[in-house]
Amino acid sequence: MAKIKPYTLSGMMELLPGEQVQMDRIMDTIRRSYAAFGFTPLDTPLIESSEILLAKGGGETEKQIYRFEKGDADLSLRFDLTVPLAKYVALHYNELAFPFKRYQIGKVYRGERAQRCRYREFYQADIDVIGDGKLGIMNDAEIPAVIYSVFSGLGLSHFKIRINNRKILTGLYRMLGLEELSGDIMRTVDKLDKIGADKVGEILRDDFSVPAEKVEQILAFMAIGGSNAEVLAALEGYRGKDETFDLGLDELSTVDRYIEGFGVPRENFAIDLTIARGLDYYTGTVYETTLTEHPEVGSVCSGGRYDNLAEYYTDKPLPGVGISIGLTRLFFVLNDQKMLNDEVNTAPADALILPMTQDYAAAVALSTTLRQAGLRTQIYTEQKKFKAKMTYADKTGIPYVLFLGEDEIAANAVSVKDMRSGEQQTLGLSEAVALIADGIARLSDKAPVRDI
Amino acid sequence: MAKIKPYTLSGMMELLPGEQVQMDRIMDTIRRSYAAFGFTPLDTPLIESSEILLAKGGGETEKQIYRFEKGDADLSLRFDLTVPLAKYVALHYNELAFPFKRYQIGKVYRGERAQRCRYREFYQADIDVIGDGKLGIMNDAEIPAVIYSVFSGLGLSHFKIRINNRKILTGLYRMLGLEELSGDIMRTVDKLDKIGADKVGEILRDDFSVPAEKVEQILAFMAIGGSNAEVLAALEGYRGKDETFDLGLDELSTVDRYIEGFGVPRENFAIDLTIARGLDYYTGTVYETTLTEHPEVGSVCSGGRYDNLAEYYTDKPLPGVGISIGLTRLFFVLNDQKMLNDEVNTAPADALILPMTQDYAAAVALSTTLRQAGLRTQIYTEQKKFKAKMTYADKTGIPYVLFLGEDEIAANAVSVKDMRSGEQQTLGLSEAVALIADGIARLSDKAPVRDI
Repeated sequence: MAKIKPYTLSGMMELLPGEQVQMDRIMDTIRRSYAAFGFTPLDTPLIESSEILLAKGGGETEKQIYRFEKGDADLSLRFDLTVPLAKYVALHYNELAFPFKRYQIGKVYRGERAQRCRYREFYQADIDVIGDGKLGIMNDAEIPAVIYSVFSGLGLSHFKIRINNRKILTGLYRMLGLEELSGDIMRTVDKLDKIGADKVGEILRDDFSVPAEKVEQILAFMAIGGSNAEVLAALEGYRGKDETFDLGLDELSTVDRYIEGFGVPRENFAIDLTIARGLDYYTGTVYETTLTEHPEVGSVCSGGRYDNLAEYYTDKPLPGVGISIGLTRLFFVLNDQKMLNDEVNTAPADALILPMTQDYAAAVALSTTLRQAGLRTQIYTEQKKFKAKMTYADKTGIPYVLFLGEDEIAANAVSVKDMRSGEQQTLGLSEAVALIADGIARLSDKAPVRDI
Repeated sequence: MAKIKPYTLSGMMELLPGEQVQMDRIMDTIRRSYAAFGFTPLDTPLIESSEILLAKGGGETEKQIYRFEKGDADLSLRFDLTVPLAKYVALHYNELAFPFKRYQIGKVYRGERAQRCRYREFYQADIDVIGDGKLGIMNDAEIPAVIYSVFSGLGLSHFKIRINNRKILTGLYRMLGLEELSGDIMRTVDKLDKIGADKVGEILRDDFSVPAEKVEQILAFMAIGGSNAEVLAALEGYRGKDETFDLGLDELSTVDRYIEGFGVPRENFAIDLTIARGLDYYTGTVYETTLTEHPEVGSVCSGGRYDNLAEYYTDKPLPGVGISIGLTRLFFVLNDQKMLNDEVNTAPADALILPMTQDYAAAVALSTTLRQAGLRTQIYTEQKKFKAKMTYADKTGIPYVLFLGEDEIAANAVSVKDMRSGEQQTLGLSEAVALIADGIARLSDKAPVRDI
């Protein structure tokens, strides 16, 4: 038969088994953190009606979308988890309790040109809190705690959750009489880290005709630094000139006030006035998270407050606050940086039984005993030479190999080889189970990520 | 702004939060059972090249497939998890250890007419063991143990894993000189349960011209019943007439011999000679699983042995054995039969803190304490009347509500209301944590399914 050469489409993630286990560990950590804060899991279809998904329409998104017909239906694959959430909340409004806190970890699709760390199919891991009409600022204050829980849970300590409030920026530009230009200014200021203050000033003056003294004022504002208390004190100096600014400052102060109570260490959290995020969506608190030892990676978890989740589907105002982790990108960044913890047990099983007899009754019974003790167990029963069996053990990386021959069976014992230390010993069955369970418990303790 | 009426495409699953938690519990149970037997998790793209996915081509499948173009690429959504596995194993052959045991739980797409319990997007939960050239029969013997682990783990005891061996049927029809008709005969005999022996005999005689005495022989064979030992003894009476039959009988006997060692109670396991499964794919052991109190539901977990997983992509013979659970269908069947256990905690959190003060410091600190004790915790901080707060508690079904007012804070205490019993008491913080943790542990013990 003529064969078709197997391949996986470019831009689509497909991992080898060991990598997949690492990915699953990271996903589990995120899921547990989200659940700890009372977010409920959600799962929505990959396919939605194009009419629904493209209600907002236009822009880059529409070009990237996977859109197709099936019968009479005009269908699209979701390109994020936010639009399906908006539809879900509008559709099931009467059946939900508000604030509605949901997490969703799922694949999304964007047909952009595939490149390094750019995926056409990738996981996002989102949380959002949706209010009915109103949503209190304490929800914004809790979000950094969720982010901290995720990244510390992964095993990291060198990361910084940076926050700002869009109302402060909007208010500032209004004070300066520059509200018309605020989009352009925010986009430019967003490059401060990369191009420096002089260059930003130049662009503001030359490209957007911002008067020189206002450029100075903007740069002076963006240069406000120090501890959060110092930054907030400096911001108080601007109070009383613009209502939106003042509201933003109140919100930012509230978020800052509760941070430690939520368990976030001060060193993992900073107010950063230069952060603006996307332009037309966020209206209040905004978040970015950077790995402080790997600034080149950019933000690994971003989000913010928005006024109206589902305006295309319902008249009800549904304000919300949320964050998104680009999980597939995060995985490849961590992999690239050699930060995936190779001490994690990525084997398909904890124990591998190699029966040395023709009859498998003892081996089968032992496998059942091990599983009942919570150990993931394989029996290798292929008719192969001993060397091939050990090659299998090595290649899978299963940490414990159990040899069961006539002698062991007669003695109600088993020979256990710890594949990491190379040590082998013959033990009674319950001793063997205890030894392996103990070793596996220690392996399972390992965080998925190395903190380097 | 003109609104677009929100809707979800028909045939696509979208659950309310409480149902989603039930679904996730079922999925977790399946995942844990699969992992216990040393299957490694796999995740492949939803989208594959049509050339790859339709290599086998033709038939019903091709009509049902979601196929579309993006740029130059001819793409399709996967319609099962087997074809992507075949591609994966052929593509990554050199990097895998064999036998390769993988599980995959993922969505698949079939654009058939949506109807009750027929989904266009649905989860399958599959395991397969793939051998390199050969694969021992002990792998077939282990599969019923995995099935038992899944369904007993869900909380069921009234189910039966029914097995047969296609080699026995093939051998039987060859003995009778009917091998040309074996496809038609198997299809007809498959209806025995539904239409009875008389009608099956009639069809065999009238539609397929099977001579009357051979019809009798077939029906006599299919009527073989009793315990597995009795069935196997009766089958021994046919030994020596056909090599394939004899091999099938050896295989079936081996599978039967180790069943109890694998921890499967005899009452959950039966040899059933009428089972044939699909016609051209399975070549040895075949499995079906039925809920004995709900026979109308049909098989909830099926599969079998096949000779060659990836013949369209590689010359390497890759025999395998596997099963698939139609998870979305199973969920809706259980839901329909009122078998989802409503004692399961489906709330988004274990504890809900209602602060009774303007300052949230104590409430935030308490939420952090509860989370550190492993309890999923929400703080309700919206500016609403007390009644609205209690409505939120009722609607989410969060089992413990904690009131924290001036008095409690002053006494370093909290008032805890058990929402199920209605009982409320004021406790010290560590007592409160212990009470809730204990109650939640008891709730978490509940199996996802009621055994009725």
